[in-house]
Amino acid sequence: MVEIDTPNQNCFLVQPRDFQLPEPLPLQCGRALKNANIRFETAGTLNAEGNNAILITHALSGDAHCCGRHTPSDRKPGWWDDMIGPGKWIDTNRYFVICSNVLGGCSGTTGPGSIDPDTGRPYNLNFPVITVHDMVQAQKRLVDHLGVKHLLAVVGGSMGGMQVLEWAVTFPDFVDKVVPIATACCFTPQNIAFDWVAREAIKADPDWKGGDYLPDKPPAKGLGAARMLAHITYLSNESMDRKFGRNLQDKSDPENYGYAFDFDFAVESYLQYQGRSFVERFDANSYFYITRATDYFDLTAETRGDLVAALKDVKSSFLLVSFSSDWLFPTPQSVKIVDALLRNRKEVSFCEIKSSCGHDAFLLEVETLGRMVRDFLATPRRKRA
Amino acid sequence: MVEIDTPNQNCFLVQPRDFQLPEPLPLQCGRALKNANIRFETAGTLNAEGNNAILITHALSGDAHCCGRHTPSDRKPGWWDDMIGPGKWIDTNRYFVICSNVLGGCSGTTGPGSIDPDTGRPYNLNFPVITVHDMVQAQKRLVDHLGVKHLLAVVGGSMGGMQVLEWAVTFPDFVDKVVPIATACCFTPQNIAFDWVAREAIKADPDWKGGDYLPDKPPAKGLGAARMLAHITYLSNESMDRKFGRNLQDKSDPENYGYAFDFDFAVESYLQYQGRSFVERFDANSYFYITRATDYFDLTAETRGDLVAALKDVKSSFLLVSFSSDWLFPTPQSVKIVDALLRNRKEVSFCEIKSSCGHDAFLLEVETLGRMVRDFLATPRRKRA
Repeated sequence: MVEIDTPNQNCFLVQPRDFQLPEPLPLQCGRALKNANIRFETAGTLNAEGNNAILITHALSGDAHCCGRHTPSDRKPGWWDDMIGPGKWIDTNRYFVICSNVLGGCSGTTGPGSIDPDTGRPYNLNFPVITVHDMVQAQKRLVDHLGVKHLLAVVGGSMGGMQVLEWAVTFPDFVDKVVPIATACCFTPQNIAFDWVAREAIKADPDWKGGDYLPDKPPAKGLGAARMLAHITYLSNESMDRKFGRNLQDKSDPENYGYAFDFDFAVESYLQYQGRSFVERFDANSYFYITRATDYFDLTAETRGDLVAALKDVKSSFLLVSFSSDWLFPTPQSVKIVDALLRNRKEVSFCEIKSSCGHDAFLLEVETLGRMVRDFLATPRRKRA
Repeated sequence: MVEIDTPNQNCFLVQPRDFQLPEPLPLQCGRALKNANIRFETAGTLNAEGNNAILITHALSGDAHCCGRHTPSDRKPGWWDDMIGPGKWIDTNRYFVICSNVLGGCSGTTGPGSIDPDTGRPYNLNFPVITVHDMVQAQKRLVDHLGVKHLLAVVGGSMGGMQVLEWAVTFPDFVDKVVPIATACCFTPQNIAFDWVAREAIKADPDWKGGDYLPDKPPAKGLGAARMLAHITYLSNESMDRKFGRNLQDKSDPENYGYAFDFDFAVESYLQYQGRSFVERFDANSYFYITRATDYFDLTAETRGDLVAALKDVKSSFLLVSFSSDWLFPTPQSVKIVDALLRNRKEVSFCEIKSSCGHDAFLLEVETLGRMVRDFLATPRRKRA
């Protein structure tokens, strides 16, 4: 990722915008969300036919700010800026790119930290349970509002990939191409178990107060521990070995064990930094709702059939991508989806990218991934039989 | 594991015993431990030559009670009772089996919860940093005290395997055969990272009080979270899939999401049970000291050479065993040790046992493992050149 220290007058600027849903949004849990707000950003221009739009869906801790800068003095650009922008792999000179913060999030879209219009107080844990299907329903209302007639593509990694799959199944006639990256049709029990322990760590923090924490006193230790745990699952053993090895932190003499329970190994200091910085930008209750949405996501459960049945009505062309060292969403998870699509005689391409970066590779191996996505977007679909 | 509900009059009885070290025990950190007590159990009879003794070394949460029952009404036997006992794979009719709780532990041996003779109060975090080398030094004093002239073997899995390796390196002339199971010559950064997050979860619990918690009010939530996290790493994705799948807990209607942040999936309820029962039998400060000992363990660092150099003076015959689905101590970790032994032209056998049980396989695949260990113990060593 490029970081600039001096204001860049030529940088690509984008602006966050808000869309308030005119109607209550019915949710899968049976409740409806009133006055829901969707925070989103766009880049590029929608063409007259309304069919050059690409929706980018973000992962657990992402937001609507996928590319460019809000001001020339921003030190960091959006989270997928290497991928998206003028002349980049997803070229905003050609495509109209839309990215919105997910429902239940904490970066502008209505979530547990928002004010419940019925009580005038924050929802906290009274916020309704959100599913990936609900996230996608909210996105559909946004793209309709923006005048999009047909999405050229939906592209996203990790939890973003779950939204991509959900789009293909829920709105088969609306999406031409889908790119689910480093994802799965459902979580394994191991994935669910990691999420559970992360939430238990938050619950163990007395500042959490059953979700009713004070805005200036969030459950920082618990949320930090949750993030550190998740972060381990985003890296590969190999990348951790290369980055940290068994190096001790700031120790001239390796025999000097110091106060053994403060951080001592380099990997511990790194994780502590990751945990602390996450607390500054993320909300503990959103962490609850969004991880629960990923736990519940199950493409097969929605149609009450197996994966082949679940995918029988999709019309999009698929490009699935996995990464060889990703153990959170390993390649066989993608292959399972590819197999089910092939058994339905759907259009599908698949690539496992060799990478040592673990799950995070979808944010890091941008050149290899970008080239593939660019060509997939540019290639005309094969004629239907 | 066999569980009995009615008192078994014919069961194999063992008794916990204590050995108080007559001299202060010098530790690797530079401090010495006064009045250290070693809790141990033995089974079988030491022969007149004092050379039929087998030392069993336990894993993180184990203890001295490796086989038999303390009373006929005990519901559960020792933790490796399927392996050890009269007529079993490690046959106590033939061998004299010794197992002791590790230094820093909380099951009878001196640890952070013991009274510091200098202050009359519990050590808590004033307890000195303990290493695997220190654990082994304490065990050596115990086996000397018991009249053992030469250990026939040292056998252990996981952290127990680290102790086995340390024995072979530290006391090359004292140990005839060693069986390091499901272990490694050092932790990877990923292993260290999991331990770090587990300890951070304990630290985040206000009941921890910097280690000075009240005996009747331990940091139960934090220690429970730590155990749940560790437990995930003991299972394989495959065994979790088979045991739990994506089954919901006690739900007649899968659409009924209930209160989404209590346990909902079967795997969550299982982990919660594991976390809670661990808190009843383990001490949070011991968890700190023992995990730190495993983090610091590095066979190569002690001799300041590489693994080949570290193993050049060992004299024991080795049987290394790994399990195919163990991702905490995967097979390549054992192969690395085997390679280094072969490069030193040492006696070494190795087997990867096919198992879907993950790291826990060393406690579960007892028949396959036991047969191998029995034959290894019974086979005469090859003649020296």
